[in-house]
Amino acid sequence: MARIKATIQYCGCNYSGFQVQPNAVTVQEVLESALSRVYNSRINVTASGRTDSGVHALGQVIHFDAPSSSLPCDKLPFAVAQYLPNDVSIIEAAEVDSEFHARYSCKSKTYKYRLICSEYNLPLEYGRAWICAYQIDVDKMKKAAKYFVGEHDFKAFMASGSNVQSTIRHITKLDICEYDNCIEIVVSANGFLYNMVRIIVGTLVDVGRGRIDVSDIDDIILSGERAKAGKTAPPDGLYLVSAEY
Amino acid sequence: MARIKATIQYCGCNYSGFQVQPNAVTVQEVLESALSRVYNSRINVTASGRTDSGVHALGQVIHFDAPSSSLPCDKLPFAVAQYLPNDVSIIEAAEVDSEFHARYSCKSKTYKYRLICSEYNLPLEYGRAWICAYQIDVDKMKKAAKYFVGEHDFKAFMASGSNVQSTIRHITKLDICEYDNCIEIVVSANGFLYNMVRIIVGTLVDVGRGRIDVSDIDDIILSGERAKAGKTAPPDGLYLVSAEY
Repeated sequence: MARIKATIQYCGCNYSGFQVQPNAVTVQEVLESALSRVYNSRINVTASGRTDSGVHALGQVIHFDAPSSSLPCDKLPFAVAQYLPNDVSIIEAAEVDSEFHARYSCKSKTYKYRLICSEYNLPLEYGRAWICAYQIDVDKMKKAAKYFVGEHDFKAFMASGSNVQSTIRHITKLDICEYDNCIEIVVSANGFLYNMVRIIVGTLVDVGRGRIDVSDIDDIILSGERAKAGKTAPPDGLYLVSAEY
Repeated sequence: MARIKATIQYCGCNYSGFQVQPNAVTVQEVLESALSRVYNSRINVTASGRTDSGVHALGQVIHFDAPSSSLPCDKLPFAVAQYLPNDVSIIEAAEVDSEFHARYSCKSKTYKYRLICSEYNLPLEYGRAWICAYQIDVDKMKKAAKYFVGEHDFKAFMASGSNVQSTIRHITKLDICEYDNCIEIVVSANGFLYNMVRIIVGTLVDVGRGRIDVSDIDDIILSGERAKAGKTAPPDGLYLVSAEY
């Protein structure tokens, strides 16, 4: 057996998230099915973390154990492509130490969120960005973003129903840039709570719309109360950019 | 009756092109169906030109005659949105002189072509760009592009089966820019022959790959022979950006 680390991309539009579940098509399911055909053996994959329904990935990382075979890792992306749908792709694969674990070895992750201000539907952005009809002050969002950077208890930015030991996370980067009519938010942390990026984005948009004051962000974080933060931004604009090891 | 000029966007992935045809879903059909419901009267639309199956539009222009109604033009994009699928949208509408004709009044059009160099499938670009596994020299493409600008007989860059009086067209702009792994080609002309943009792109890619010399472009144009130009680039990367009046 050999442990393989692979980087994958997917468009989340047609999937009920990453993780296998009954009666729904998931990214994990199509990946395992394709890899099992390539290796002619049942393959189970483990990801750096699950992504929700409709969320995309530019650099999700998985690992799996494959039977020792004559297939060199650099040929895997091409070998598996014939069994994968067009909206899922392996872009890189390498053999790693058997201790490597896509989830537990992960040191940090980076997400990107795309937000587009438009009164109209944008057919080419449908499912790929949050199309907002709001007037947004990006400078206010940038000021608010600074309060999130650093080690904080992000309990107010976690969806209910998740079960974690600690809600303390360290955000190392939260950058906001604007080009054309698109606002792009890039956030890196040593880990993310359930829906944390989407709730932070929802809160930043509320700041940009003038519904939350920049000066209130500190209090919202300190309160630990989900109800004080903004609403959860839709999955459409969220991209898992990379997992760092 | 009032003549309305409207600007529309669509993602071409799920359509057999713009123009109505039997046994296929077209953009024109879903537009006419939605507009007919808004005005409660049969509406026929005319576009600046047809686009092929799989080709997208950021700024296609149409006109139609609507019964005089209480619906102000600036409300049309919202009124029609409820009857349109998510991959077609009207983004602007205005009443125009009854002489205005989306096709015959059109003075020039601008297309964009997106080309991405990658050995792997790119799920988020599928259907939205030409994913090329080739090594491409963009500087050579830029040099070749200059030969196309100006008034020329573009017979060598027209697909067979079209019936036009003259194959002379005036290209006013052919710009190539590169960002990340994407090569974007923007071309404006007073008119385009059938598949002209896609054949020019295919030829430029052959230059970038070293299969056609920059110095041969002049001869290919002068020859008027389709066989001497490059192959037709796939529709996936082509976007109608605007029609100018």
